Amino acid sequence: MYIEKIHSSKDLRELKVEELNAVAKEVRNAVLYRVSRHGGHVGPNLCATEATVALHYVFNTPEDKVVFDVSHQSYPHKVLTGRAKGFIDDNEMDAVSGYSSPLESPVYDNFEIGHTSTSIALATGLQKARDILGGKENVIAFIGDGSLSGGEAFEGLDTAAEIGTNIIIVVNDNEMSIAENHGGLYQNLKLLRDTGGTAELNFFKTFGFDYHYLENGHDVEALVSLFQKVKDIPRPTVVHIHTEKGHGYAPAVSDKESWHYHMPFDLATGKLLNEESGEYIPAMLGQFLFNEMKNDPKLVAISAGVPMALGFSAEMRKQMGKQHIDVGIAEEEAVALASGMAKRGAHPVFTTYATFLQRTYDQLAQDLCVNGNPAVINVLGASIFGMNDFTHICFFDIPLFSHIPNLVYLAPTTFEELIAMERWAVRQESYPVAIRVPAGPVAHSNEKYDEDYTELNRFTVSKTGSEVAVIAVGSFFQKGEAVVRLLSEHGINATLINPRYLSGVDEALLEGLKAGHRVVATLEDGSIDGGFGERIARFYGPSDMKVLNFGVKKALYDRYDVQQLMADNRLTDAQIVEDILSIV
Amino acid sequence: MYIEKIHSSKDLRELKVEELNAVAKEVRNAVLYRVSRHGGHVGPNLCATEATVALHYVFNTPEDKVVFDVSHQSYPHKVLTGRAKGFIDDNEMDAVSGYSSPLESPVYDNFEIGHTSTSIALATGLQKARDILGGKENVIAFIGDGSLSGGEAFEGLDTAAEIGTNIIIVVNDNEMSIAENHGGLYQNLKLLRDTGGTAELNFFKTFGFDYHYLENGHDVEALVSLFQKVKDIPRPTVVHIHTEKGHGYAPAVSDKESWHYHMPFDLATGKLLNEESGEYIPAMLGQFLFNEMKNDPKLVAISAGVPMALGFSAEMRKQMGKQHIDVGIAEEEAVALASGMAKRGAHPVFTTYATFLQRTYDQLAQDLCVNGNPAVINVLGASIFGMNDFTHICFFDIPLFSHIPNLVYLAPTTFEELIAMERWAVRQESYPVAIRVPAGPVAHSNEKYDEDYTELNRFTVSKTGSEVAVIAVGSFFQKGEAVVRLLSEHGINATLINPRYLSGVDEALLEGLKAGHRVVATLEDGSIDGGFGERIARFYGPSDMKVLNFGVKKALYDRYDVQQLMADNRLTDAQIVEDILSIV
Repeated sequence: MYIEKIHSSKDLRELKVEELNAVAKEVRNAVLYRVSRHGGHVGPNLCATEATVALHYVFNTPEDKVVFDVSHQSYPHKVLTGRAKGFIDDNEMDAVSGYSSPLESPVYDNFEIGHTSTSIALATGLQKARDILGGKENVIAFIGDGSLSGGEAFEGLDTAAEIGTNIIIVVNDNEMSIAENHGGLYQNLKLLRDTGGTAELNFFKTFGFDYHYLENGHDVEALVSLFQKVKDIPRPTVVHIHTEKGHGYAPAVSDKESWHYHMPFDLATGKLLNEESGEYIPAMLGQFLFNEMKNDPKLVAISAGVPMALGFSAEMRKQMGKQHIDVGIAEEEAVALASGMAKRGAHPVFTTYATFLQRTYDQLAQDLCVNGNPAVINVLGASIFGMNDFTHICFFDIPLFSHIPNLVYLAPTTFEELIAMERWAVRQESYPVAIRVPAGPVAHSNEKYDEDYTELNRFTVSKTGSEVAVIAVGSFFQKGEAVVRLLSEHGINATLINPRYLSGVDEALLEGLKAGHRVVATLEDGSIDGGFGERIARFYGPSDMKVLNFGVKKALYDRYDVQQLMADNRLTDAQIVEDILSIV
Repeated sequence: MYIEKIHSSKDLRELKVEELNAVAKEVRNAVLYRVSRHGGHVGPNLCATEATVALHYVFNTPEDKVVFDVSHQSYPHKVLTGRAKGFIDDNEMDAVSGYSSPLESPVYDNFEIGHTSTSIALATGLQKARDILGGKENVIAFIGDGSLSGGEAFEGLDTAAEIGTNIIIVVNDNEMSIAENHGGLYQNLKLLRDTGGTAELNFFKTFGFDYHYLENGHDVEALVSLFQKVKDIPRPTVVHIHTEKGHGYAPAVSDKESWHYHMPFDLATGKLLNEESGEYIPAMLGQFLFNEMKNDPKLVAISAGVPMALGFSAEMRKQMGKQHIDVGIAEEEAVALASGMAKRGAHPVFTTYATFLQRTYDQLAQDLCVNGNPAVINVLGASIFGMNDFTHICFFDIPLFSHIPNLVYLAPTTFEELIAMERWAVRQESYPVAIRVPAGPVAHSNEKYDEDYTELNRFTVSKTGSEVAVIAVGSFFQKGEAVVRLLSEHGINATLINPRYLSGVDEALLEGLKAGHRVVATLEDGSIDGGFGERIARFYGPSDMKVLNFGVKKALYDRYDVQQLMADNRLTDAQIVEDILSIV
């Protein structure tokens, strides 16, 4: 095997160019082995294999610096830069992450990257600093066509071209985003592919880039030759290569969307190793919206590149027709679009993951909430049970969004409450509403939930007790129930409260608790700094009420174990009870 | 006068096309009169005069809907849509804001807009909803060339083109942003101007837009004719018009940057009515950086469209050379660029207003702070003394940024402390650092401030007392001093603390206060929800310490009077003392 002997890209460069096809084959097999055992991004990595081999072969990495957009295409790079064991050795897989990471490889990885459309902008920093410091290395951004739809990619292109010195942007065009591409830009990429890159009308050239096209992005020797041509070029340059998503693995080629990311599977058949069982709340929410839009022709579901987040399959998208719009990976556009649609009388619902919603704070605050337009935003995975990679931590949404004036931010505690709130939200025309979709184990309830949430910031008392009141937010409500049960074993008949609203406090209810309660504990499935609990602590600050806030301490987290995370943050049921008892 | 009789755009449409030049002249004079008396955006409005007259003449507004980007060009529109008195009557000026506002004109203004690059994205919402609801009206986004550099504009273009139905984007190209334009894109706009719009290489056409060019954007009849041509067009269309910033007022033409926005001036001479007096802290900070970069060739100042925010005049920018980079209105790029530069060993400092920094939360959190790169961000105007227009409220920065892991957020209390912190920040290579530049009346001090802030979250005690401790943040420190003085008149010898760090609490110091203090009051010049004070309330939640948080209540504010705002939020010195005394 070649790859066992390639400990750095320097080892790769010792080989003859004729050997690179064999290397690429091994790299592809290594990637496939890892994802089949461990899960991960399949299609993007397979399609980037040859280009990555050629890149490290031609460029003098790590002195020449490569930035991989969103990291979905960085596995072959990892295989070639000292981390092959993470791909071929079952015992080493957990040591390697799915993302570009200087913590993992300080030499070869320049940035921790997990969000989309950042590579060019980050690379402009390397470009500008190199120029200031008198360096001579090549700066390379490696970006998929799907990532080009994000505004930050555009801003990066605009600046890279203006700086005017060496920067090489490899556009890996596999004609796909996570799902199909959306946006006018993709007409131009098609034109460029159809004309072998010769069309006069060229998006990249409008910025002033030199431009090169390669039709077969899997031809290692052609890639080597093209990269040699642009190496050390003193001008901003785009290398546009045409590839096939999932290349070299038939199941991934035939169903590109499903194989963008995949859970562990049988390599021979492509079948999932562990059939997923159990309910998936976002898909159930998607089904509700799918049904609702049949009765409400004004309802439009908005996706930003991840329609499958709500389980909107290609077939469902077809049936929804004009009542679904995917804007590509462009969350800012998604929120502004929602605001405009609500203004004009439609009922827009935008859904994405909390970690990606971070990309559009200003549009939420300004385009939507200053205007008070009644769009609905579903916030997925905002939970310690959400994605747990370094760059995908999902639990900053409450600090980030709950202080925005005019936004109604709701936290349902069960699937049934989610649907009650969603039904109200998509039918009302008074408020911008965000809904924190519960994550983690699915909770159900036969409780009769309110149908109307117009009267804001009304908490509900689920159980009336005394001495201690537990305010348990959203997906931590069941934890609140458990804590109250445990407290009863210690002779405390605690009150349990479902606050429902994250964007305000129920002052009358809180005031009322002063009679009969000495301790209020808040439980929230998210960051404690700037979170919901601190609002309660502030309310009771001047009073005799003791307040305990439970949540996640500010820190960087990476691939944590949820149980361990809870234990480290004193979030287990027993720890919470212990802390409460210590001050009662 | 025509404009006194034009109460709606319908009145304008009663006129003959030959009369429009006279109308435009009156509109321009009205705009000039207002800005000369009241201050406001001069250059952008003057250059948009003829186009706006033609727009309302041709299109069936308000049924046809116009969205004005950033609103800097919306004054002529206001003059023509029932708000002329706000421009010609001294007593009515305050009733009209400087921004597009449905609160002011529910019929003619579609959105509250004050941030840049949002118009096309918002217009796609009107476009999509119209299509869903079966409407037939034209949707028009009116955007300046300078606003095109923002990523949201790109995302809007991408989606507008894909939707594929009527949307008309008027690109008002005056060859200027607030300062000069920056970005590769502007090469293409120049090429289009130079070729009368005939160049094959056309940024807008790459998305699939139909495209029309008009060389003289001040020729009303030509504008009318062109708008008539595109009215009701069933396809996404760009109308690119070439205008002159400041057109029709010689001083504004000859110094376009200074006249982008202007304080009240003498119409005949262009001279400021009230020479500004007093110190301007951001300019003094700019001077410090200007001097520092002479000694540190690695230091690079980054602007995002507003270099004058630090007083960086054209002459200073020339002298800074490669040590200054303006990325245009593209805050996401600015932060990613800073991160990349810091990674590569340069010393980048990005400065902008708090209200615009909101546009780049994800880049701060991900591109910069997850990576821990030591870039410096100066946050301007984060204060109740900052800009106070509806869309420019500047006091959400603490909730927004202080919870971000890895970010060191500092709040100097005086100019001298600002410089001490800035000096440390630009020279250290350990942390991403943001500095909340004090706003409001300039405070100075002879105190000897620390030179090193590496040891994080260390509050300092300015005065040791007992019973009450006042923790006064940043630009509210002087208020803290006043409160402590007043308390002493009531026999309370209060402790005064300068927390210095917004991104963490000094637990040891807070713990120590428990001995000898019964009340802690926090004073912060910003939003109380999610703010600094709530961290303190949380810390003391389980204890007997009483905590009072003073700050601004969550609400939408518009053109407030600072003294009134303080009174409404119980932030006057006397109110704070009264509230403290009530619980001592």
